[in-house]
Amino acid sequence: MAQKLWGGRFRKQIDALANTFNASIHFDNRLYPQDIEGSMAHCRMLAKQGVITDDEASRILEGLGQIKGELDRGEIPFSTDYEDIHSLVEKNLVEKIGSLGEKLHTGRSRNDQVALDVRLYEREVIQRVMGLIRDTQSALISLAEKHIGLIMPGYTHLQRAQPVLVAHHLLAYYEMLKRDRQRFAEVLERVNILPLGSAALAGSTFELDRRMVADELGFDGITDNSMDAVSDRDFVLDFLFASSVLMMHLSRLSEELILWSSREFGFITISDDFCTGSSIMPQKKNPDLPELIRGKTGRVYGHLVSLLTTMKGLPLTYNKDMQEDKEALFDTADTVEACLSVTCRLLTGITFHAEELREAVEKGFLDATDLADYLVRKGIPFREAHEVVGRLVLFASDEGKELRELSVSEMKRFSKKIDKDVYEWLDPVRTVNRRNLPGGTGPERVRQRLETARKELES
Amino acid sequence: MAQKLWGGRFRKQIDALANTFNASIHFDNRLYPQDIEGSMAHCRMLAKQGVITDDEASRILEGLGQIKGELDRGEIPFSTDYEDIHSLVEKNLVEKIGSLGEKLHTGRSRNDQVALDVRLYEREVIQRVMGLIRDTQSALISLAEKHIGLIMPGYTHLQRAQPVLVAHHLLAYYEMLKRDRQRFAEVLERVNILPLGSAALAGSTFELDRRMVADELGFDGITDNSMDAVSDRDFVLDFLFASSVLMMHLSRLSEELILWSSREFGFITISDDFCTGSSIMPQKKNPDLPELIRGKTGRVYGHLVSLLTTMKGLPLTYNKDMQEDKEALFDTADTVEACLSVTCRLLTGITFHAEELREAVEKGFLDATDLADYLVRKGIPFREAHEVVGRLVLFASDEGKELRELSVSEMKRFSKKIDKDVYEWLDPVRTVNRRNLPGGTGPERVRQRLETARKELES
Amino acid sequence: MAQKLWGGRFRKQIDALANTFNASIHFDNRLYPQDIEGSMAHCRMLAKQGVITDDEASRILEGLGQIKGELDRGEIPFSTDYEDIHSLVEKNLVEKIGSLGEKLHTGRSRNDQVALDVRLYEREVIQRVMGLIRDTQSALISLAEKHIGLIMPGYTHLQRAQPVLVAHHLLAYYEMLKRDRQRFAEVLERVNILPLGSAALAGSTFELDRRMVADELGFDGITDNSMDAVSDRDFVLDFLFASSVLMMHLSRLSEELILWSSREFGFITISDDFCTGSSIMPQKKNPDLPELIRGKTGRVYGHLVSLLTTMKGLPLTYNKDMQEDKEALFDTADTVEACLSVTCRLLTGITFHAEELREAVEKGFLDATDLADYLVRKGIPFREAHEVVGRLVLFASDEGKELRELSVSEMKRFSKKIDKDVYEWLDPVRTVNRRNLPGGTGPERVRQRLETARKELES
Amino acid sequence: MAQKLWGGRFRKQIDALANTFNASIHFDNRLYPQDIEGSMAHCRMLAKQGVITDDEASRILEGLGQIKGELDRGEIPFSTDYEDIHSLVEKNLVEKIGSLGEKLHTGRSRNDQVALDVRLYEREVIQRVMGLIRDTQSALISLAEKHIGLIMPGYTHLQRAQPVLVAHHLLAYYEMLKRDRQRFAEVLERVNILPLGSAALAGSTFELDRRMVADELGFDGITDNSMDAVSDRDFVLDFLFASSVLMMHLSRLSEELILWSSREFGFITISDDFCTGSSIMPQKKNPDLPELIRGKTGRVYGHLVSLLTTMKGLPLTYNKDMQEDKEALFDTADTVEACLSVTCRLLTGITFHAEELREAVEKGFLDATDLADYLVRKGIPFREAHEVVGRLVLFASDEGKELRELSVSEMKRFSKKIDKDVYEWLDPVRTVNRRNLPGGTGPERVRQRLETARKELES
Repeated sequence: MAQKLWGGRFRKQIDALANTFNASIHFDNRLYPQDIEGSMAHCRMLAKQGVITDDEASRILEGLGQIKGELDRGEIPFSTDYEDIHSLVEKNLVEKIGSLGEKLHTGRSRNDQVALDVRLYEREVIQRVMGLIRDTQSALISLAEKHIGLIMPGYTHLQRAQPVLVAHHLLAYYEMLKRDRQRFAEVLERVNILPLGSAALAGSTFELDRRMVADELGFDGITDNSMDAVSDRDFVLDFLFASSVLMMHLSRLSEELILWSSREFGFITISDDFCTGSSIMPQKKNPDLPELIRGKTGRVYGHLVSLLTTMKGLPLTYNKDMQEDKEALFDTADTVEACLSVTCRLLTGITFHAEELREAVEKGFLDATDLADYLVRKGIPFREAHEVVGRLVLFASDEGKELRELSVSEMKRFSKKIDKDVYEWLDPVRTVNRRNLPGGTGPERVRQRLETARKELES
Repeated sequence: MAQKLWGGRFRKQIDALANTFNASIHFDNRLYPQDIEGSMAHCRMLAKQGVITDDEASRILEGLGQIKGELDRGEIPFSTDYEDIHSLVEKNLVEKIGSLGEKLHTGRSRNDQVALDVRLYEREVIQRVMGLIRDTQSALISLAEKHIGLIMPGYTHLQRAQPVLVAHHLLAYYEMLKRDRQRFAEVLERVNILPLGSAALAGSTFELDRRMVADELGFDGITDNSMDAVSDRDFVLDFLFASSVLMMHLSRLSEELILWSSREFGFITISDDFCTGSSIMPQKKNPDLPELIRGKTGRVYGHLVSLLTTMKGLPLTYNKDMQEDKEALFDTADTVEACLSVTCRLLTGITFHAEELREAVEKGFLDATDLADYLVRKGIPFREAHEVVGRLVLFASDEGKELRELSVSEMKRFSKKIDKDVYEWLDPVRTVNRRNLPGGTGPERVRQRLETARKELES
Repeated sequence: MAQKLWGGRFRKQIDALANTFNASIHFDNRLYPQDIEGSMAHCRMLAKQGVITDDEASRILEGLGQIKGELDRGEIPFSTDYEDIHSLVEKNLVEKIGSLGEKLHTGRSRNDQVALDVRLYEREVIQRVMGLIRDTQSALISLAEKHIGLIMPGYTHLQRAQPVLVAHHLLAYYEMLKRDRQRFAEVLERVNILPLGSAALAGSTFELDRRMVADELGFDGITDNSMDAVSDRDFVLDFLFASSVLMMHLSRLSEELILWSSREFGFITISDDFCTGSSIMPQKKNPDLPELIRGKTGRVYGHLVSLLTTMKGLPLTYNKDMQEDKEALFDTADTVEACLSVTCRLLTGITFHAEELREAVEKGFLDATDLADYLVRKGIPFREAHEVVGRLVLFASDEGKELRELSVSEMKRFSKKIDKDVYEWLDPVRTVNRRNLPGGTGPERVRQRLETARKELES
Repeated sequence: MAQKLWGGRFRKQIDALANTFNASIHFDNRLYPQDIEGSMAHCRMLAKQGVITDDEASRILEGLGQIKGELDRGEIPFSTDYEDIHSLVEKNLVEKIGSLGEKLHTGRSRNDQVALDVRLYEREVIQRVMGLIRDTQSALISLAEKHIGLIMPGYTHLQRAQPVLVAHHLLAYYEMLKRDRQRFAEVLERVNILPLGSAALAGSTFELDRRMVADELGFDGITDNSMDAVSDRDFVLDFLFASSVLMMHLSRLSEELILWSSREFGFITISDDFCTGSSIMPQKKNPDLPELIRGKTGRVYGHLVSLLTTMKGLPLTYNKDMQEDKEALFDTADTVEACLSVTCRLLTGITFHAEELREAVEKGFLDATDLADYLVRKGIPFREAHEVVGRLVLFASDEGKELRELSVSEMKRFSKKIDKDVYEWLDPVRTVNRRNLPGGTGPERVRQRLETARKELES
C-alpha cells in the first residue's frame, strides 16, 4: 500500500477492508485534470508569495506536467493503494522530484482542494450541458419550422381539446429548455467561486494570495468563510436539481414521442436507426430511446435525494459523508449529457404524418370552445354558452357526427342564436388562426416566436 | 351539490365519492384572495377590450369585492359542493349579480386561472420567506458580534480540529442563508410571469390584453407559449428545492445546537422558554425545537420528491395529476416560515459558556497544524513536518499531555528545528489570529465580514 | 395555556411561538380512541399489580370513559394549549376525578405511550386497507369474468405485441394486488407487538405485567428491548413502503385507463359519474379520477422519503424529530384508502368496446411471433425464423397489408417452408388459444386462474 | 457491430450513439453466470419436451459451458457491440456451435429471461446479506457480553436520561437487525418464483414445462400471470426498501459511534486500523468509516426513489424504462454488503472506557425518575412526584450538586416524605437493577436476552 498523506500519530496501518471501503480513487480519478490544474495555480501562488522559491515552483510545475501527461496516456494505474486522486498526484510528484514535492501541500488541505476540484469539474460540465440544451432547442425550432403549417390535436387530460400548430406544441418544449438553461446559468454563478485558501476549515497561517489563484483559474470571486467553504455542497445540489427538472422535461417529451409513435396515435415515425427490435417478436419496432430517457429521470431524481439525505443534519465542517457527493454528480452529468445528445439526434429523425394529424384534428369536437365563443359574441354569457354547446356535443355524439356535420336547424334547437355563419367557427384551421394573442397558437404569433427564439439562441 | 362549471354534455351527475375525491376546495380555499384579485384584473381588461361593458365590469367588480369581504369574515363555508375555489367564487358571483356573473369566465380557463393564483400566492410567500431569512441572518450577526472574542473548537469529522472564533462559526451559517436568499430571488423572477390568457391550452379567441393584466398584477412579463404556460409547474419545484436546501442548512445548525447543548459538549444553554420537558423524567430539559426543525427537513424533501414524481412523464398539457402541486407548496411554505421564525427567536435565547469553550479549545491538540507550519518556516517540507508532528502528538498523548505542556527538549527529540519560540505557535489565541487571510478565522477578517454582512442585509 | 406534564425544573413557561411549533395536538388528536384504549389497559394492569387500588382503577376507568364520550361528541376542543393528545386526556382526567388522575401515568412515559397509540392506529388502518385491496381484486375478477371472451392487443414498449385476453390483462393487476396484500400482512405482524412498559427508554421500576396489557389489547407479543421500542419507527416505514408499491400499481392501472379512454385508443368508456368536464371546453369528458390517483403516487412516495430522511442518523433513543412520523402516516392512510375505494368503484363503471378491440387486434402484425413459431415447427431455427418474419413484416408493411392478407406465394418468397396451413397461425383467436401454458393467456388457463383467484379471496 | 437479435424488419442499422445509449452490456455483464444457468435449464427442458433433440441439447449445453469458462477467465470482452448479456451469450453460442445455437431462444423472450436472471442474482445477494446481518448481530452480542457489567447514560433528545447497561444499548441494534433479517427473508420468498415461460408477455406457443425449470433452478413456484411476470419489479423494490431500512439502522449506529468517539463524549476508542488521518492536521484521527456508512444511507435511499419513480405510471407490460432497475440493484447490493462487513469488523475493534462512562452516569440527574418513583411508593401521585423532583433538580443544579449530594433536610424542604432511605434510589447501579421487567435494562433481563439472542442466531 502506498503511504498515506497522514500516519505519524497512528500505531497501526489501515486495515485492508477499511482501506478499500474508504478509498475514493476508483471514482475521483476523473478529477485528475482539475486536481493538477488547481495544484499548478496553488504552486505559482506559493512562489509569488515567497513560501517556496521560483526554482522550486518550476520543478514542481514540471513534475505536475509530466504526471498529467502520464495520466493522459493511462500510464499510472488508479490503484486503491492511493486513497484518492490528491494522494496519487502528490505521491507521484514526490517520486519524481523528491522531497521538494512535499512542499506542494503547504497551506492547503484536501478539504479545500477537493472543493476546488469539484467546482472546476462542475463548471466544465455545466458549460457542455448548456451547449447541449441549446442544440436541443435548435433541433426543436428546426422541426417546428419544417412543419409550420401542420395542425394537430392539443390535449388536456390526454383527451383532445383544441387544435394547435405542431410548431406551437414543439415550442412549448423550447420554453422549458429555456428555463433549464437559465437554471444552469444560475448554478454556474454559484459554482464559480474559489474555495482554496480555506485549508482544513479555518484558513491558513501562510499569507496566501487567494485572488491570484482565483484569477488564474478563471473564478469570479473567492469564498467569504473558510468553514462554510469546506462544508458547502450546495453547488452540487443545485446541479442535481437543475438536472432533475431538465430530465422531467425530457421525460414529458419522451412520453409524447412514445404516444405519438404508437399505432393508436400514429402521428409520427421515429427513424429506424433510433429504434430497436424484439428478440422474440419479429414485427416490433420499439421507441427504446425515449423510454430510456423517461426511465433515467428516476435515476437523476435518485441522485438528488441521495445527496440531500447525506447532507441533512451534518455538523460543520467537513465530514466524510460528503465524499458521497461525487458519484451522484458524475453519473448525473453523464446521464444528462447523454440524454440531451440522444434527444437532439432523435428529433431530427422524426417524421410527422400529415394525414393522420388532419384526421385526428377533425374528430373529437375540438371546435366546441369556439362554438361557445361564437355564442358569446352573439350576446350569450359564457357560462350559458358553455352549457348549450355541451348539450349540442352530447346530441352530435349520439348521432355519430361532429359539430360541423350538424345542420343549422339541428343546432338551432339548442340555441336560436346559431346561424349559418357558425360554420366559420367550426373549422380547425380558422380555430387555430383565431388564437392570435401573444403566447397563443395563431400562426402569425408562432412564426414570430420562432424568430425571437432563433435570436435568443444566437445571443 | 352546487352545479358544476361544466355538465352540459354529461348524462349523470358526478358520483358522491368521486366528487369528494376530485374536489380541491378543502385546500385551495387558501387561494381565494389571489383568485379574486386575478378575476378583478381579468374583468377590468375584458371591459377595456370591449368584451364586456364598463357597467357590467363595475357590477362584477362590486360582486367580487363583496365575496372577498364575506370570505374574509368566514361567511362562506368551503363546502365540497364547490369543486374548487374558482367554482366557489363564480357560483357566488352569479348568485349575487345574476347571469352577468356568467360572463366573467370569458376567454379564460381554470387551467390558466389556477396557474395565475398559485403564482400570485407563491410570490407573496417568497417575499415573506426572504424577509425571514434576512431576520435570521441578522440574528446570527448579532450573536456573532456579542461573542466576538470567544474561541471555540472547530471540527472536522466531529473531532476537534483547529480553534476558531465563535463568530466565524456563526457566520458560516450567514453565508449559507445568503445563498438561500439568492436562490429564492431567482425563483421569484421565474414565478413573476403572467400565464393568464393561455386559456385552456391554446390561447383565447378573444382579443385579450395580456400585458395590461400583467401590469395590473405587478408581473414582470407574460408567458410566451400557452401550452407550456398551463403545463408548467417548474416554479413550484423551484420553490420546493430552494426550501429543501434551506431546511438542510437549518438542519445542520439545529444539529449543532443539539450537540452544543448536550451535557457532553456543554457549550451553550438554550433559554428555558424554548425547551420542553419529559412526562416521566423530572430533570429533562430537551432541545425540542431544533430537533423538530431537523426532523421537518424530511418533510420538505418529501414534498419535493412528491411533485417531481407527479410531473414525471406527463404528456402536455394540463393533467389532473397537477392538482397535487398545491398541498406540497402550502405545507412547505408553512413549514419553512415556521422553522425560520423559530430559529431566529431561538438564536436570541442562546447563552455561550466561555469557560467550557476555553477548556475545550485547550484539549485535543488543536495547535498541531500550527506546529507543522512552524516547522515549514524552519525549512522542513510540509509533508515531513506533518509526519514529525504526528509522532509528537502520539508521544504527548501517551504522556497525557498537550503539545504546549511538553518541554523543548522533549520536542527536540522529534525535530532538531524546534526551539523555544515554538510556544508562540501553541497558543489558541495566536493560532486564531494567525489565520488572517480572506475568509479565515482571524479576528480582523471576521470583524470586516461582520461589517460587510450588515451592509448586505441593509441593501 | 394548560399546564404541561412537566415544568418543575423550568424557570420560564414555554414561549407562545415555541408552544405552537412544538404542539402535535392539531394532528395527533386523531389518536384519541387508541390513547384512551391504551390507558384503560394500563390502568387495569396497574390495579392488578397493586400499584393502584381496584377502586382507584374504577374511578380512573370511569373518567376515561367519560372523556371518550365527550371527545366522540366533539365536546372537548383540540386546543394547542394541550401539547398533545396524551396531555389532553390526562389533564381532562385530573379535572374530572382530581389528583387520583395523576396516578395514571405511573410506570409510563409518553415515549412508549405514543408508540403504542400509533401501533394500535396503524393496525386498524392495515385491516381496512387489506379489505379494500380485496374489494379491488374482486372488482377486477368480476370485470374479467364479464369480458372473458374479449381479446385485446397486449403491449410492450406501448407498441402492439401479441393478442391477449382482456381478462388476462386485468388479472395481471390481481397479481400485483395479491403481493400488496401479502406485504401489508407482513407489516401487520411487525406492528402487532406491544411497546408499553418500555417507559422513557430503560423500562420501569414498577413491576408492570406487560403480557397482561398485550393480551388485553390483542397484541401478539411484547417488544424485547426498551431502548429499541421507543426508538423504532420501522413499522411506519413498512407501511409507507407497502403503500408506495400499492400506489405504483394503481398508477399503472390508472395510466392504462387513461390511455384506453383516449380517443386514440378508444377501448373503454368510463361512466359519466366518474368523470369531470372543463370550465371552458364544453366537449370535454376527462378521466380525472385515474389521473388524480396517478398523481397521488408522488404524494405517497414523498411521505416515504420524508420519514426515511427524518430517521437517518438519529442517535438512540427517542428524539423529537420522530414526531414527524404521524402526519406522513395519517395522510398516506387516507390517500391509500381513498384511492382504493375510488379504483374499485371506477372499475365497475367501465365499458369495454368489443368492436374497437377487435379492430386493434387485427392491425399491427400481432401474429408475427406465431408465424416464427410456425417456421420453427417446420424445422427452422428460431433466430432464423425471426429474421425471415421480420423481412416479411417489412414487405407487408410496404404493401399496406397485414401478414394474413398476403398470399402463400408472396410469403414463399421469404421462406419455402411456408404453406397454406400458415393461415391457422395468423388468427388472433387461435394465437391466444395456443398460449395455453401455466401463466399464459390461453382461455382455459385464464378461466382456471379466475377460479383459483376467487378462492384466494374467499379464504 | 455484432448483429442484433432482431433486425429483419429494419432498413437501417442502429445509429452508433443510439447503440451505446441503449446498450446494457456494461452493467448487465454481471449477470452472466445467472444468464447461462437459466439458459441451461431452459435448454434441458426444451429437450425433455421434444422441442429440440437430446443431442442438440447436449451440444448447446456444452457450448454454454465453454462460454461460461471463457467468461470466468475474462476471455470475452464485454463490448457494447453486444446489446446486452443475453445477446453476448447467444451470439457466442452461434459462433461456437453454428446455427443450432439459434434454437436456444425458442419459446423465450429477453423479457422473461432478464426477469429470471435478476431473480437468480438477487436471491444470491439476499442470502449473502442475511449472513452478514447475522455476523453483525453476533458481533453486537459479543461486544455486549464483553461489557456486561458496564453502565452508560441512556439518552433521549441527546440529553442524559437514565442509566442503562452498555449491553442493553447494543442489543437495541440487535433487535433492529433482527427485523432487517426478517424483512430480507420476506423478500426472498417473493423473489424465488420462476418467471420464465412468460415469453414476451403472453406466454409461449410451445408446450414448455415451467415447473421442471423451476425445480432445476430451485424456485419455490412459478408466476401465475405472464403479463405481470414481465412487468413486475416489485422484488427489486422490496430489496431496495429492505436495504434502505437496514442502512437507516446502520446510520444510527454510526452516528452513535461518531458521537461516542468524539473528545466530548470520550466513551469509546475505535481501533487505529479503522480510522484515517488528515492531510493537513497531524493530530487528527477520524472515524471515517462510520461517517461513510452514514453518508451511504443517502445513496441507498436514492436508488429506492430512483426505481419507484421509474416504475410510476408505466403501462403494461415491459417498457425499456425498466432496464434502469439493474444498476440501482447492483450498487445497493454492493453498498449494503460492504457496509455490513465494515460495521461487523469495526465493532470488534471498539474499546469502551469504563472510567468516562462511570463519570458520565453520575452527572446529569439520571436518577431523577427513580426519585419520583420513590415518592410514588410513599403515596404521592406520580404527576405530583414529578413536579416535586423537577423543583429539586432545579435547586440542586443551582447549588452545583447532583441529587445524591443533597442532604435529607435539603430534600425534605421539597417533600416531607423524603427520608434517608432515599439514597438507595439515587445510585446508578441500583437504578439499572430496578428495571427488571421484560425488555428493561435490568442485568438479569439483559443476560437472558443475550442468551435467547445467541440461540436465535444459531437457529
